[in-house]
Amino acid sequence: MADPARLSINQATTREQHSLAEAITAYAEAGVTGISIWRDKLAECGLDEAVHMIKDHGLRVSGLCRAGQFPAADAKERQARIDDNLEAVDQAVALGADCLIVVAGGLPEGSKDISGARQMIRDGLGAVLPHARAAGMAVAIEPLHPMYAAERCAINTLSQALDLCDELGEGIGVAVDVYHVWWDPDLESQINRAADRILAYHVCDWLVPTTDLLLDRGMMGDGVIDIPLISKWVDGTGYDGLIEAEIFSAKNWWKRSSEEVIRTCRERIVTAV
Amino acid sequence: MADPARLSINQATTREQHSLAEAITAYAEAGVTGISIWRDKLAECGLDEAVHMIKDHGLRVSGLCRAGQFPAADAKERQARIDDNLEAVDQAVALGADCLIVVAGGLPEGSKDISGARQMIRDGLGAVLPHARAAGMAVAIEPLHPMYAAERCAINTLSQALDLCDELGEGIGVAVDVYHVWWDPDLESQINRAADRILAYHVCDWLVPTTDLLLDRGMMGDGVIDIPLISKWVDGTGYDGLIEAEIFSAKNWWKRSSEEVIRTCRERIVTAV
Repeated sequence: MADPARLSINQATTREQHSLAEAITAYAEAGVTGISIWRDKLAECGLDEAVHMIKDHGLRVSGLCRAGQFPAADAKERQARIDDNLEAVDQAVALGADCLIVVAGGLPEGSKDISGARQMIRDGLGAVLPHARAAGMAVAIEPLHPMYAAERCAINTLSQALDLCDELGEGIGVAVDVYHVWWDPDLESQINRAADRILAYHVCDWLVPTTDLLLDRGMMGDGVIDIPLISKWVDGTGYDGLIEAEIFSAKNWWKRSSEEVIRTCRERIVTAV
Repeated sequence: MADPARLSINQATTREQHSLAEAITAYAEAGVTGISIWRDKLAECGLDEAVHMIKDHGLRVSGLCRAGQFPAADAKERQARIDDNLEAVDQAVALGADCLIVVAGGLPEGSKDISGARQMIRDGLGAVLPHARAAGMAVAIEPLHPMYAAERCAINTLSQALDLCDELGEGIGVAVDVYHVWWDPDLESQINRAADRILAYHVCDWLVPTTDLLLDRGMMGDGVIDIPLISKWVDGTGYDGLIEAEIFSAKNWWKRSSEEVIRTCRERIVTAV
């Protein structure tokens, strides 16, 4: 039920099918409005070439994935992560991205101190934000599902992400991904609280059963998330940006043709989002 | 660091090795204080025989698993679930269990209405509680990890469980399982809020990586949960009940000898809890 002109496709959705150059061409030729770019694919393509192709094809970049990963066992490595985030800010600016997506990072190797990891995340974001503000690049914290707390991201609810935003001030907001937050009993109230700090809205679906913690996401409409309800809440805040389909699906969508994946995303954003 | 006399073993920890009768014998002979019983194993054994054996072996029953599963697609099935819960209350009383563990249930078949499922859970608990109060059986809501929201339990944080307790009144509390709640940024404050409503405390560990959503739990000390810290918070409320090891582990602990599993639980409650 969403406007198909709002569709962006996260390139991870066709990660196994396409290089970045191929994804840009395929999405644009299919009439998709936006793309979200991953930095490993960007490195293969080269930043200048990617910027050139994005402009040529008239695509909008809904986000650059991903910065973050702040917690590390020692100060030197933590600084290296911060430096990497500063570079990511510059890449996002060059690409004209709507925001830089931050997946904050989990426990350092050998650590059981999740509270300490969260402190490192706060400190890391604090070190990156001045540059992001000066560069005019919005930083979007993406709370990840609690099942990723150990390895990927110790920011696990929208409430927690917004508390961080409150603490850190201007220039930082949130990315709302239905996969990560659909279960949260406070979701509606926290989306309302986020208000104009929603910088990105990601969709896919939770499959029943889910057979892999990371790579078994569903296409919108194939799972149990009431996506139209969440979209209504997000739209209710005034968010009118792109809606990004991000589907990690090793056993299903990554094995299909890019044409079918893109066509299905275009259909489902109307019928299931 | 916990007193080994507080150890209870949930019989699911040796589910593949033992019938209920065998588990009772094995745990008691190893000097374990308590057992938590599953109703499918209880049905195989027979309630009278189980009651008899528990008394004979001097075991304490830390909980009966499990009641709940309230949401269903139609009123007839919802009533059947309530009736089953009423029977579970009587079984728990007969066994002298410390509490009846409620795993509330997820989405009914075909439903995407998690809010509606939560309403059914509230209504179901409300229908069971008068009988439980009259029978003197404490009902323990166990919030399950958000990755189980769709299929098993739509009560996913301690905060949400305590809100339900607040609403439903006397005779109901919570079971705190580190596996389900360790990631929660509000955990310490919600444990404090729970106070004397903590009816059960379950331990195991979160493995990195976790390869299965349901059956890849770790032995205490083998994962990334700071269990002693959570134990300190739980003990700080005045909870001095049993500490129950509950480890679903298809690839590891279920394949070892019962003797090794029990011995390791006895060691780890001292060194890792």
